[in-house]
Amino acid sequence: MFFDILTLFPEMFVGPFSESILKRAREKDLIDIKTINIRDFAEDKHHTTDEPPYGGGAGMVMKAEPIFKAWQDTQNKRGVKSKTILMSPQGKELTQDLVKDLSNEEGLTIICGRYEGVDERVRDTIVDQEISIGDYVLTGGELPAMVLVDSISRLLSDVLGDEDSSKKDSFYNGLLEHPHYTRPREFNGLKVPDVLVSGNHQLIERWRKKESLKRTLLRRKDLLEDKKLSDQEKELLKEIKLELKGEVDE
Amino acid sequence: MFFDILTLFPEMFVGPFSESILKRAREKDLIDIKTINIRDFAEDKHHTTDEPPYGGGAGMVMKAEPIFKAWQDTQNKRGVKSKTILMSPQGKELTQDLVKDLSNEEGLTIICGRYEGVDERVRDTIVDQEISIGDYVLTGGELPAMVLVDSISRLLSDVLGDEDSSKKDSFYNGLLEHPHYTRPREFNGLKVPDVLVSGNHQLIERWRKKESLKRTLLRRKDLLEDKKLSDQEKELLKEIKLELKGEVDE
Repeated sequence: MFFDILTLFPEMFVGPFSESILKRAREKDLIDIKTINIRDFAEDKHHTTDEPPYGGGAGMVMKAEPIFKAWQDTQNKRGVKSKTILMSPQGKELTQDLVKDLSNEEGLTIICGRYEGVDERVRDTIVDQEISIGDYVLTGGELPAMVLVDSISRLLSDVLGDEDSSKKDSFYNGLLEHPHYTRPREFNGLKVPDVLVSGNHQLIERWRKKESLKRTLLRRKDLLEDKKLSDQEKELLKEIKLELKGEVDE
Repeated sequence: MFFDILTLFPEMFVGPFSESILKRAREKDLIDIKTINIRDFAEDKHHTTDEPPYGGGAGMVMKAEPIFKAWQDTQNKRGVKSKTILMSPQGKELTQDLVKDLSNEEGLTIICGRYEGVDERVRDTIVDQEISIGDYVLTGGELPAMVLVDSISRLLSDVLGDEDSSKKDSFYNGLLEHPHYTRPREFNGLKVPDVLVSGNHQLIERWRKKESLKRTLLRRKDLLEDKKLSDQEKELLKEIKLELKGEVDE
């Protein structure tokens, strides 16, 4: 899958895309990431990419023309019409389901906004979808673009070393993950739960499922409301509620 | 304000924190960002930072000890007990209100998880708060840590050039932003709305408020439900609904 990222700060992407999993994925040609400097497509003498807004007010607005030209250039070079996404706090909220949908695309063109925003006519002419990574404000669309590329890439086949890993993730089955422990058995006076060193795989699975349900119930009740529970899950949830009642109410 | 970031991939942070607004803020000593390599605190011969989970299963778990030692070292060096945050998809959802709260801290220590997660005893001993930037899965906590630092930094005084800029942001008054336009007046056959070049500031303000309300109504109705509307806003909203009714229902 390819990602063409239009930005005023291509250097920002060097570190995040040159480490760990994404680095390996690029080396194995599983993903192809290009960053395109919008400024290269600003054709006036000063390479102007932003100007004050019509109507007055604080801040600067990114001009439509350089973005449009950068976009056209990437589309021509790829030779395919790829979906174009604008990272924006006003966009559709990114969720794991949306990540999964987007991972089926052949490639994406991602526009990173800066300053007060981009000229509205960029939205009107080339943007297929606006995406927000959350309800907070950032200095630009660059970090959100990295988040999008990272989340999608790790779902592509062969990108993660261990096939199991992405299937067992938080949100992948609609529950938060159970606690994890590794060596040593005792750390700062805290011990690993006995069941995890029992060797009884059925009990371990049950414990993990129960802790996963418990954590979801305590932290993200909304996720349970959306989920279709199995009979075992329903039973465990009943058990948890009884236990918590004992702890909390007495 | 200071940020101590505990990570296995300090090189990832170089680009994102060396550009644009965060670069200037660091140069002016408005923020002090340190990345600490957890691996430097793994004291065995192979500098092991992760091991298989107790109880079996796929993936690796980050060991408690190196994280704990790295954390202790940063706390000692700063000489203050700073709030410690674990970036985790299981944490509290990051919102602009939480960003504002955190911007009042003297400093933050941020732990970036990797692999299947961190040993539960890290949570139990040193983590004050777990924060999630959204309901999607990433390869690690590094990008979320960058998002957190970026969102907080831009609220600190003097970090943004123009004082007005952060106050007028999306989500700052609970509405999505109105469209922006800059030169040229006409681009690809699309013109800037006449009102914005009218010079009538009252009309311009009204138009912007109305577009802001309209966009929020169409894209993020949930934000309107939480917001206390002024009389003018209520009136504009009535107008918008009437107009949309004409468009949508007929």
